[in-house]
Amino acid sequence: MSEFAKTPQPPYYAVIFSSQMRDMDGYQEMADKMEELASVQKGFLGLESARNSEMGMTVSYWESKEAIQAWKAHAEHKLAQQLGCQKWYEAFAIRVCKVERDHFFER
Amino acid sequence: MSEFAKTPQPPYYAVIFSSQMRDMDGYQEMADKMEELASVQKGFLGLESARNSEMGMTVSYWESKEAIQAWKAHAEHKLAQQLGCQKWYEAFAIRVCKVERDHFFER
Repeated sequence: MSEFAKTPQPPYYAVIFSSQMRDMDGYQEMADKMEELASVQKGFLGLESARNSEMGMTVSYWESKEAIQAWKAHAEHKLAQQLGCQKWYEAFAIRVCKVERDHFFER
Repeated sequence: MSEFAKTPQPPYYAVIFSSQMRDMDGYQEMADKMEELASVQKGFLGLESARNSEMGMTVSYWESKEAIQAWKAHAEHKLAQQLGCQKWYEAFAIRVCKVERDHFFER
């Protein structure tokens, strides 16, 4: 993911997902699949992510808290969440936020 | 930065800073200095970040919007912001959020 999410005027919502990996086997395929699946959910606004050897940070943006709840409960996503806890992640933090203000700079 | 921020019970605030670099010369020294300086500001709760070749994501956590404003206006930080626009960044997005809910997993 190399571009910024094209989000509307605030308010909107963000899910900050910070993770430390344990096992990368099969992870990237699942992450790509989940990104593709998320992107067609109602209320999805965009996604930004970066990963290095120590930490991964993914922020997804959503129109509403209801859209976040619906994605959380999506059957294929739930399966990926289970596999994540069993296999891929050493630890993670999820924070659900209301974006109140934003600012963009482009050269 | 390899650890998760130790944030309190929500609500608290997050600043999501997503960036694409143009020039890395002198950047890491300034980034390290700003992290050190931010960490002693009143109301600072923690910071998480990851960077790869395409994108950098840094999320800092704060007790209040007032703490974020004070950090934004800090003299040394303002100088770093100016240098960032002149030199280091191709583009960036800043989003100020209220964290309403969080969840942690650790193996």
